[in-house]
Amino acid sequence: MNDVTQPSRRQLLTLIGRMGGAAAMYQAMTALGHAAETQFTGPPVLSGAKPGASVVVLGAGLAGMVAAYELEKAGYSVKILEFQDRPGGRNYSLRGGDSFTESDGTVQKVTFAPGNYVNPGPWRIPHHHKCLLHYCRQFGVALEPFIQLNHNGFIHSSDAFGGKPMRYREVAVDFKGHTSELLAKALGAGALDQSVTAEDKEKLLEALRNWGLLDANMAYTSSVHVSSQRGYDRPPGGGINGAPTPSQIAKLSDVFSPQVWTAMSFYFNYVMQTTMFQPVGGMDMIGKAFAKHVGKSITYNAKVTKVAQNGKGVTVSYQDVPSGKVNTVSADWCVCTIPLSIIRQVEMQVGPKLAAAMKAVPYAGHIKMGLEFKRRFWEEDDAIYGGHSFTDQAIGQLSYPNDRFFSNGPAVLLGAFTSGAGAFQLAGMTPAERIEAALKQGEVFHPQYRKEYLSGVSVPWTRVPWILGCTSRWSEENRAAHYQNLVALDGRVVLAGEHASYYGGWMEGSMLSGLDAIAQIHKRASAA
Amino acid sequence: MNDVTQPSRRQLLTLIGRMGGAAAMYQAMTALGHAAETQFTGPPVLSGAKPGASVVVLGAGLAGMVAAYELEKAGYSVKILEFQDRPGGRNYSLRGGDSFTESDGTVQKVTFAPGNYVNPGPWRIPHHHKCLLHYCRQFGVALEPFIQLNHNGFIHSSDAFGGKPMRYREVAVDFKGHTSELLAKALGAGALDQSVTAEDKEKLLEALRNWGLLDANMAYTSSVHVSSQRGYDRPPGGGINGAPTPSQIAKLSDVFSPQVWTAMSFYFNYVMQTTMFQPVGGMDMIGKAFAKHVGKSITYNAKVTKVAQNGKGVTVSYQDVPSGKVNTVSADWCVCTIPLSIIRQVEMQVGPKLAAAMKAVPYAGHIKMGLEFKRRFWEEDDAIYGGHSFTDQAIGQLSYPNDRFFSNGPAVLLGAFTSGAGAFQLAGMTPAERIEAALKQGEVFHPQYRKEYLSGVSVPWTRVPWILGCTSRWSEENRAAHYQNLVALDGRVVLAGEHASYYGGWMEGSMLSGLDAIAQIHKRASAA
Repeated sequence: MNDVTQPSRRQLLTLIGRMGGAAAMYQAMTALGHAAETQFTGPPVLSGAKPGASVVVLGAGLAGMVAAYELEKAGYSVKILEFQDRPGGRNYSLRGGDSFTESDGTVQKVTFAPGNYVNPGPWRIPHHHKCLLHYCRQFGVALEPFIQLNHNGFIHSSDAFGGKPMRYREVAVDFKGHTSELLAKALGAGALDQSVTAEDKEKLLEALRNWGLLDANMAYTSSVHVSSQRGYDRPPGGGINGAPTPSQIAKLSDVFSPQVWTAMSFYFNYVMQTTMFQPVGGMDMIGKAFAKHVGKSITYNAKVTKVAQNGKGVTVSYQDVPSGKVNTVSADWCVCTIPLSIIRQVEMQVGPKLAAAMKAVPYAGHIKMGLEFKRRFWEEDDAIYGGHSFTDQAIGQLSYPNDRFFSNGPAVLLGAFTSGAGAFQLAGMTPAERIEAALKQGEVFHPQYRKEYLSGVSVPWTRVPWILGCTSRWSEENRAAHYQNLVALDGRVVLAGEHASYYGGWMEGSMLSGLDAIAQIHKRASAA
Repeated sequence: MNDVTQPSRRQLLTLIGRMGGAAAMYQAMTALGHAAETQFTGPPVLSGAKPGASVVVLGAGLAGMVAAYELEKAGYSVKILEFQDRPGGRNYSLRGGDSFTESDGTVQKVTFAPGNYVNPGPWRIPHHHKCLLHYCRQFGVALEPFIQLNHNGFIHSSDAFGGKPMRYREVAVDFKGHTSELLAKALGAGALDQSVTAEDKEKLLEALRNWGLLDANMAYTSSVHVSSQRGYDRPPGGGINGAPTPSQIAKLSDVFSPQVWTAMSFYFNYVMQTTMFQPVGGMDMIGKAFAKHVGKSITYNAKVTKVAQNGKGVTVSYQDVPSGKVNTVSADWCVCTIPLSIIRQVEMQVGPKLAAAMKAVPYAGHIKMGLEFKRRFWEEDDAIYGGHSFTDQAIGQLSYPNDRFFSNGPAVLLGAFTSGAGAFQLAGMTPAERIEAALKQGEVFHPQYRKEYLSGVSVPWTRVPWILGCTSRWSEENRAAHYQNLVALDGRVVLAGEHASYYGGWMEGSMLSGLDAIAQIHKRASAA
């Protein structure tokens, strides 16, 4: 009886799926509490590939390599063309002995000590990027925690706190203290009686008193109690002189400075939330792990010059960079993961909608700088272990290394990471001028900078020849007009990469788009 | 000229130091921005110890061992008496093969897989506990990050959110959203015009709009924008179905539940702030490292039965536990680190002030439980890597292991950590009943619990024979009346341990008090 009059949950979902398709199915699943936490539940199932079916993949970054890996697993014949002489694309690390050539030919040599590195591209992995984590686990890429939120990092605003850097804990605690006091005051005066019930008002006042560390008068004032969160002038100790002395709270107008809530908000971004990870030894461990599996299919130093297609297949022309010789490769299908900033300069036989979409998306111009110092003074002198310090200066932020805490010897910190005006200002300098700027600005936090500095490298992404930008930047308008056209299979060509995702600039977006691209190809190939 | 009319900062400090002593010096340093971040700047300098001077140390926990280590370095002759058959005191770990005997003789055998452990006592190290970190570094104790704040951990309140566990990110983002909306409303209505200037009001409104993710009407409402912090129903992805769908915000009255702000406030405690550490392989690596240096001075299985002193020295009587034989050891001085809960049952020749102080301090009764499961379902299924889930049930919280993320095989999580009513409720059960309670309550978060459970151990500190409690609990009144009497040298005896510090329950407090104790002895011994 039950299975007729009261359909099971599964039957209900099947019914909804039949009637309304995937979207209705998804809505129903959400309503029933079944929605997956991520879009990734496993690689696409590409069963029944036609024998001999072939795919040419353009670009050996993560999107291209994950596509190639799953295609080969499914029985497709795959060739990958890669402009550079290494796999990974933006997934890479610079170490001592490496060099970096900017688009105008300027060369920087990296002289870091063995074991030290900087990740110019991606550098942190959110715990919910399940696709990336799936492959790291499958390929045995060792991961270690990336310390994201560090309460002891600094916040610096040129026009607040007298220009003095503050610890994150100090400003974050003061922000909640001052706002709690104000809200409690408004509630006490009855100003919100139309908005909250009497019961909620009592609950909220109790919350604010505790959360804001308010005193008996519901005021936020300097005390040992407040210092138990924002830090002490003299912390508690043991024995005769064990008693702590309180610190002084900062004043309201400084605490409401944009630099404070910008940093506080940053840590609340879902993609920035703890727990985060990084590969042990450098981000390029991921690209290298993929290359172990698909490396034999990669042709390096291959500059794509033309993508032609007809009803039967795709022919890609490419130049062997060292020799200048032009070759072609043909295949049934093509996955193009070359950044839009580059591929839109290449002759490509695609429909007008895709062509328009490819032209529509601008690229952000981040810069990153790695600075090597003689010792970890940020740990030894300032008790900062990983995490960030933010500033409104051009360098944007410092980020402290998350590996080999407490170790002796030279270490590399990220001496600048910024986009927008600051990035373009730094990109417009010579490498030596950039270092000088980074040292001068970083001294705001760490007066030890000059004394301990060893060497540095700067990577302004606008000047990286193989991309001329850092990540795609979709506006809402562009999304509405072009996104579906950009990601849809165009004849026998489909695009993939972070630009073909809603996770711009993240490895997860690249890989999910790579998987979606091959799912589209497989569906069409199987139907043909 | 300058050095006469304008004394340098150092000259000024020297002058102040001469005139006003250490306290004035410290106040001046604070005013000049020189105050040390911690009380620890290095071990005390114990130069010129009298040849042959001797100290007997009672207890081979961290307070006792750090005291012994520095005393021996300075030339003192040291003997340590320890009740247990191992060093470390509360600094210890339980592993497979260990057993734990409660005060009523109940024995629990631990059957964890090799490499798995639970730390029944201390388990995390704040980045600012410089004394402890100093010795870890000096002794080569490898440390790894202890993931403290995990935005993806759960918050569970029996009487909010319909009893459903929420992710920390969801409630924390909703809390700031709802409170920002209310405060913006009050500001907009002019309710706080007496409290903030017009300029600060504008700054604050801008802050609230951004920080609270308020919409164009300054309201906190469900949206993709809000979901970019609290999490999505369907997260962003790549390719055709890449668009995210927003989650629904929780209602105000649930969000103001005490369980929410209690958890949020917890993470803001200075001692709980990121970055935190743990020793690789178990907390007892620290005690073992100390024992490598002072182990030859330790007599194990030594139950102190009497501490006698006169003007010339101290005589401690102790029973060799296995044989029952009573011995004595004599020394010029004594550092007693035995917990107050134990030592106040022992005959001790001290003055009335110290005797009263020793009786005054009650002990907290925490319980911890380690549960071993077949696999890391919290990582694999729930994307929780380290950190905590909080509940208002008796178990208090779960804490997820911070070592060997992503690994296969059995793993141990902390299945209960609580004090107060919950701890006493669990302590009053048999070990099997405690496990059953922990499984039942933990299922609120993880329905996988029963299926994956392997074994468990519970440590109710009130039933640990060698302490009968967990940590000292000083009230403000007790501090005022007794603290200085407790920590001061009484004739030739001085107390040390976490109870003799302002960092009750923390290893840092134990060690700082141990160092202060020997500084007092050395000063008196040098003056004698």
